[in-house]
Amino acid sequence: MSATLDLARELIRRDSVTPRDEGCQTLMIARLEALGFKVEKMRHGDVDNFWARRGDAAPLFCFAGHTDVVPTGPLDKWDSPPFEPTVRGGLLYGRGAADMKASLAAFVTACERFVAAHPDHRGSLALLVTSDEEGVALDGTVKVVEALEARGESIDYCIVGEPTSEQQLGDTIKNGRRGSLSGRLIVHGIQGHIAYPQLAKNPIHLMAPALAELAATHWDAGNDFFPPTSWQVSNIQAGTGATNVIPGQCELQFNFRFSPESTAEALKERVYRILDTHGLSYELHWQLSGQPFITPPGALTRSLGQAIAETSGAQAALSTSGGTSDGRFIKRVARELVEFGPINATIHKLNECVAVDDIEPLSDIYQRTLELLLAKA
Amino acid sequence: MSATLDLARELIRRDSVTPRDEGCQTLMIARLEALGFKVEKMRHGDVDNFWARRGDAAPLFCFAGHTDVVPTGPLDKWDSPPFEPTVRGGLLYGRGAADMKASLAAFVTACERFVAAHPDHRGSLALLVTSDEEGVALDGTVKVVEALEARGESIDYCIVGEPTSEQQLGDTIKNGRRGSLSGRLIVHGIQGHIAYPQLAKNPIHLMAPALAELAATHWDAGNDFFPPTSWQVSNIQAGTGATNVIPGQCELQFNFRFSPESTAEALKERVYRILDTHGLSYELHWQLSGQPFITPPGALTRSLGQAIAETSGAQAALSTSGGTSDGRFIKRVARELVEFGPINATIHKLNECVAVDDIEPLSDIYQRTLELLLAKA
Repeated sequence: MSATLDLARELIRRDSVTPRDEGCQTLMIARLEALGFKVEKMRHGDVDNFWARRGDAAPLFCFAGHTDVVPTGPLDKWDSPPFEPTVRGGLLYGRGAADMKASLAAFVTACERFVAAHPDHRGSLALLVTSDEEGVALDGTVKVVEALEARGESIDYCIVGEPTSEQQLGDTIKNGRRGSLSGRLIVHGIQGHIAYPQLAKNPIHLMAPALAELAATHWDAGNDFFPPTSWQVSNIQAGTGATNVIPGQCELQFNFRFSPESTAEALKERVYRILDTHGLSYELHWQLSGQPFITPPGALTRSLGQAIAETSGAQAALSTSGGTSDGRFIKRVARELVEFGPINATIHKLNECVAVDDIEPLSDIYQRTLELLLAKA
Repeated sequence: MSATLDLARELIRRDSVTPRDEGCQTLMIARLEALGFKVEKMRHGDVDNFWARRGDAAPLFCFAGHTDVVPTGPLDKWDSPPFEPTVRGGLLYGRGAADMKASLAAFVTACERFVAAHPDHRGSLALLVTSDEEGVALDGTVKVVEALEARGESIDYCIVGEPTSEQQLGDTIKNGRRGSLSGRLIVHGIQGHIAYPQLAKNPIHLMAPALAELAATHWDAGNDFFPPTSWQVSNIQAGTGATNVIPGQCELQFNFRFSPESTAEALKERVYRILDTHGLSYELHWQLSGQPFITPPGALTRSLGQAIAETSGAQAALSTSGGTSDGRFIKRVARELVEFGPINATIHKLNECVAVDDIEPLSDIYQRTLELLLAKA
């Protein structure tokens, strides 16, 4: 019935838990080569990536995405097996259905229809696909971007197919992302027997007031494009397991999602100041996984917004909320970059799904965006 | 050279990691039966216990102790094998050397010399020995005490041979113990992606101010016999391991060591009040493992103090600090109960040891105490 649904099912059937690709890219490449794309496979380590381009002229429009999916979690909690695509109640179930195999399928079918209608389109069309977005993201998109940078190849318009819609297909376009700065904090105390607290220093007790202050801190107010900077602890651990021992250290992992109103350096300084005010003895290891970036409203957001309005009737809002994606890497070589895809309510969860009625319209939106940007007048 | 040292070595040679006895009690029983003790073995589950009594008259003096020892930890970190008693630099090394095989040996040899000198002593002499003090303590001393209670047998004076000395043999007698009340607290939040904190509730953040307040709370000031009540967290855990997930709950385990100036019920109420003040959603599971108990200065502390002064020259201080012991169970059937034994600096550690020069004097102190309390005038 639907070419996009069929291809989405084919992709979901492949058990491509990150960083495995399991033949998804081979399937896509065969379809793209049939359209005249020139495909470069760029395997790094265990990670399959490809760069496919049709045409040499500017402007270059690129679809970007990933074939890998997050682990399934307990199989017995799924109502149908996660790698057997199943339509039930108007929903297509399967791991990766929403994040982001429906988008990949929609990319391919959008290209097929667009090229059929406009074989001689202006500019160029490209796909950048990886199997390492959900994992460590070291051998994936970042490596393809480095290759493009090295040869001076740059992108004018990029849509990353991440599931950005919230209530209705097309209601949200992500035109930027917050920065992400993580920390691993180890507070040192002195281990001892719980019956002799005067001989020990309990790092949990020492840390508690500093933790309360960090959790209550207002970091910034955000701006027109960004929500306020947020600080969250993801993990905390102290204790030997024994209930009669005061532990020697307490470890916690935290993460900032930050707006351009704060710099990573300023946030670090504020954390150090709070920890030092409380007189803690600690180690703190930082990892900056992404600077904030923004694509201000322009040709890409206008074209995509118009395509959405024409196809689904939705009025797309621009947003910079949510997690990191490979957009942070691609932005280095892309003038205008947004993320746009299906509803994200079930991603990374059990019984991940996408509405069947959204799949073909998603392809139509991508196709219409291509027409608005690359069709000859 | 020393009967007590010889017996201590024999006991250490037996690998009696809790709850195993490995023949320690058989060895002790043979020696006690030779002195005219009537011995009742009271095995419960995997645990060997015995009650040995010489005489029927009051007052009844009892030595109490345990043959089990804590695990060795990494064998390669011991300077000599933990179950090969080794004298080096005036110290007898081995697991259980201080906790409490030297005390057990000293009990036996003190009884031997006392009975030889006073075959017709007044009152009665008893030993209560278990192999489940270092473990769960469910089938050990508590079961023997229940048997004594059931037949109305009660103790007038009891010395538990726990290692109570701190700097010098005889410097500390424990004449009571604090209560021990444990709690397992689970603070509920709402799990979510760290990039969408507005959709989640971070239980670590929610808990931090309550934890800071609990850690800063002054529970009571103690009294003449007890240090102030202490509250300590032993373990805290929250997080899925993933660094991009706000956890759904945070669990912590804590313990009160409490003086008789606070009741377990009052402490519970105060914890509930603090948690409720901070608006937390939580579960809290309590375990009361011991009420505080005290033996005020009297005939036993006077006699033991005198025996110490005469033997080692030390002035024994009375103390109620430190961990729980089987004294908490025996106190139910014992009018006066103290704990007294060798220096505790190395207990539960690698290279546990006791000074050879303290072993025979420890037996002398026990023997002299018996004379002061049970010898005919």
